[in-house]
Amino acid sequence: MSGGITGSITGATRLYAILGDPVAPLRSPALFNAAFARLGRDAAFLPLQVPEGALPEVWAGLRRIGNLDGLVITMPHKAAALPLLDALGPTATLTGTVNTARRRPDGGWEGEMFDGEGFRDGLERAGHTPHGARVLLVGCGAAGRAIGFALARAGVAHLALRDAAPGRAEALAARLAEAFPALPVSTGAAGPEGRDIVVNATPLGLRPGDALPLDPAALRPGQVVADVIPNPEVTPLIAAARRLGCPTVTGRAMHEGQARLAAAYLGIAGWEEGAPG
Amino acid sequence: MSGGITGSITGATRLYAILGDPVAPLRSPALFNAAFARLGRDAAFLPLQVPEGALPEVWAGLRRIGNLDGLVITMPHKAAALPLLDALGPTATLTGTVNTARRRPDGGWEGEMFDGEGFRDGLERAGHTPHGARVLLVGCGAAGRAIGFALARAGVAHLALRDAAPGRAEALAARLAEAFPALPVSTGAAGPEGRDIVVNATPLGLRPGDALPLDPAALRPGQVVADVIPNPEVTPLIAAARRLGCPTVTGRAMHEGQARLAAAYLGIAGWEEGAPG
Repeated sequence: MSGGITGSITGATRLYAILGDPVAPLRSPALFNAAFARLGRDAAFLPLQVPEGALPEVWAGLRRIGNLDGLVITMPHKAAALPLLDALGPTATLTGTVNTARRRPDGGWEGEMFDGEGFRDGLERAGHTPHGARVLLVGCGAAGRAIGFALARAGVAHLALRDAAPGRAEALAARLAEAFPALPVSTGAAGPEGRDIVVNATPLGLRPGDALPLDPAALRPGQVVADVIPNPEVTPLIAAARRLGCPTVTGRAMHEGQARLAAAYLGIAGWEEGAPG
Repeated sequence: MSGGITGSITGATRLYAILGDPVAPLRSPALFNAAFARLGRDAAFLPLQVPEGALPEVWAGLRRIGNLDGLVITMPHKAAALPLLDALGPTATLTGTVNTARRRPDGGWEGEMFDGEGFRDGLERAGHTPHGARVLLVGCGAAGRAIGFALARAGVAHLALRDAAPGRAEALAARLAEAFPALPVSTGAAGPEGRDIVVNATPLGLRPGDALPLDPAALRPGQVVADVIPNPEVTPLIAAARRLGCPTVTGRAMHEGQARLAAAYLGIAGWEEGAPG
């Protein structure tokens, strides 16, 4: 028997997993397992529910499991995973966070952060190039940091940062200035006026009744509005932007971009063929 | 999506696993996943390759994983698992080994040993009752110990123990005498003569070119010959016994018996319907 059917997971099946909490709403297991089935690969991708604070202990055990080849790391572990790895990619080092890790031939584990590049990938596949764009990024937490670095690397013309927590936008601006000294970055209570692309990287919109991350009355038709929240796919911000005639990019596009890049990093060839949107 | 298809493992899927090394030849993942698919249960059963000596570290991690509900433990970890659990069943306590563990409602883990009862179950389903039988048990390691206790509990009339390692048969005899003081147990270089049932519980027959665990020339037609080795299913001993006209019970029957009992312990109802042999 080979991959595809749960009944066909055998002793020889190779394992991949996503670590997070909660895991029930995660889309990665279905996405990766559908790819394994399509590719005829004898592998399975599992959700592992790891409570906050338990990662070091869980990770010490997982790294001893010989048929585990790769991991995706999600909330609340993206920063906690960093010091547990033996080697880090450049974006993991810059952002202080990791979302994908793989076993190296020497048995050690290395990790990289693809949230930002996944966002950029989703944006570009939706037809919106960040190169030369003026961007407002609302939210400078883990997701916002990763997106800020990816947008800087993609060559945005100007980046305005905003965060409700005092000092967080300024801290990201300082880190960006070190890595990309030529990029104009501003902080403060700036709105969407004059931006080509407006990004929500806060959790606002995840829960019913959340406040909006920015006032949609300030949006103008033609401005691209992107959101990091994959579920619900249409957040109140995305819905408001669509009513105003703005092109939108949902968190689902970002998540699919992350999954594509994570799959490539994990050596899962052929992901694109027949993959969802 | 619900259980059955690997493509349908989602974030909500509950997990079970077998811990061993090697894992590639293990039959439990295929057996349990086929049962989950048949039962429409949103669960997956995984092979976890855990090298000898790594169990304490792996176990410390696994017990923090919130969606892991049960484990089967196999070579080389059956004795090493014992001190890691929070509670033990009576057979685990008697034999000093564990082959199944489950999460309790309070979050702790408890384990029990079903290898011996699985053997007895396979023997009885093949139509051979150990009650009142005279039995020769060759091999008094972990498997032999478990089988010895199960045969004693089933009410054999006499048990002859043999082991190539000095003192091992005598040690099992002493433990059996404590638990079953009325059972006649003998040790020494006894052969199959006069036995109703002859059991190989040594690893001999696992590898091509292994010596036979006992001289088949001493077998007589009508004696039941049972082997614990599931793969190859027809060991040289089983083949020789069949040529002599002895009824045989293979390691596959024992393994299926263990799996049935482990499934019941893990709360997997409906295992029997449509289950293999």
